[in-house]
Amino acid sequence: MAATSTTPTHGYSADKDALLKRLNRIEGQVRGIARMVDENRYCVDILTQIGAVQAAVEKVALGLVDGHVRHCMAAAKPGERDDKATELMAAVGRLLKTA
Amino acid sequence: MAATSTTPTHGYSADKDALLKRLNRIEGQVRGIARMVDENRYCVDILTQIGAVQAAVEKVALGLVDGHVRHCMAAAKPGERDDKATELMAAVGRLLKTA
Amino acid sequence: MAATSTTPTHGYSADKDALLKRLNRIEGQVRGIARMVDENRYCVDILTQIGAVQAAVEKVALGLVDGHVRHCMAAAKPGERDDKATELMAAVGRLLKTA
Amino acid sequence: MAATSTTPTHGYSADKDALLKRLNRIEGQVRGIARMVDENRYCVDILTQIGAVQAAVEKVALGLVDGHVRHCMAAAKPGERDDKATELMAAVGRLLKTA
Repeated sequence: MAATSTTPTHGYSADKDALLKRLNRIEGQVRGIARMVDENRYCVDILTQIGAVQAAVEKVALGLVDGHVRHCMAAAKPGERDDKATELMAAVGRLLKTA
Repeated sequence: MAATSTTPTHGYSADKDALLKRLNRIEGQVRGIARMVDENRYCVDILTQIGAVQAAVEKVALGLVDGHVRHCMAAAKPGERDDKATELMAAVGRLLKTA
Repeated sequence: MAATSTTPTHGYSADKDALLKRLNRIEGQVRGIARMVDENRYCVDILTQIGAVQAAVEKVALGLVDGHVRHCMAAAKPGERDDKATELMAAVGRLLKTA
Repeated sequence: MAATSTTPTHGYSADKDALLKRLNRIEGQVRGIARMVDENRYCVDILTQIGAVQAAVEKVALGLVDGHVRHCMAAAKPGERDDKATELMAAVGRLLKTA
């Protein structure tokens, strides 16, 4: 939130620290999965961990969409709002497709 | 790959190196997303990268399911096959839910 | 479409006819799948048709989200906008979960 | 199960009646959504019903995958099993993509 005059504020600014913490945790989870593969662990157990990563990544995505809707779109000038909505919908569509 | 005589072989054993390479790349992608957040990049651009991570993670998951079906299930004794199928379906169900 | 003075206009109002046509087509697709089951058709062929239904249903869902973002949220008074965003996010979250 | 001598048995044969009942229910749900659109109901309420349809369709899909794994693949001759697995993986991949 406390963006300086030169830093643009985004929807996620208020939660930037929490967001970075989550991304670090996901990075660690992915490293853990690589370790399981390296140790020849059972594939179904690896799939369970992959499911956990997917859920965590999706939570991050939903948080960013939420911030975009509440902040970027709310802050948009009337003339820009439609473009922001188009961007949002493209992002939501991609999330559903790749989900 | 080089499973020793005491290490069980799994469906992904033949592709272990490729799988590890992919997981390393995903780890790097997640780190890149954290960097984007840190640099206050635009949330929709971050969402695009998150979509790429989700697609990559899903590809790994599908590869593991494929290996489970072709190898673990094929190698299972008739009496174990039903348990392997139950495990598989639980994993596929989780993938769809968290997807 | 031609919302009377007593009927609230929604995001999908302009496309109501197209939306109804799509839903009718989906209904027909589901009926076709039931017929395939009744005729003992091969399960993988049925799954292919189910995939087509899921894609069609998702397209309808994305259209409704789009309308909500562009119309309901834009038409909301500043004090209501946050509630509309919360409703939207709950809906998007459910789409991703059930997807 | 009660497939006649000329009708091939599929993975879903034992549950054919239950499967048809579910598909009929989904057809009714889709018709209900069309009615909501016709009555100009609130788009977020319609999205909630769409989420219910998606969950129901996915349950049908998982049931068919389960039947394919347990019956079609188990009944496949060794030489055919790989083809059956390839078909299964294509179907699971499509489910995830359209999910």
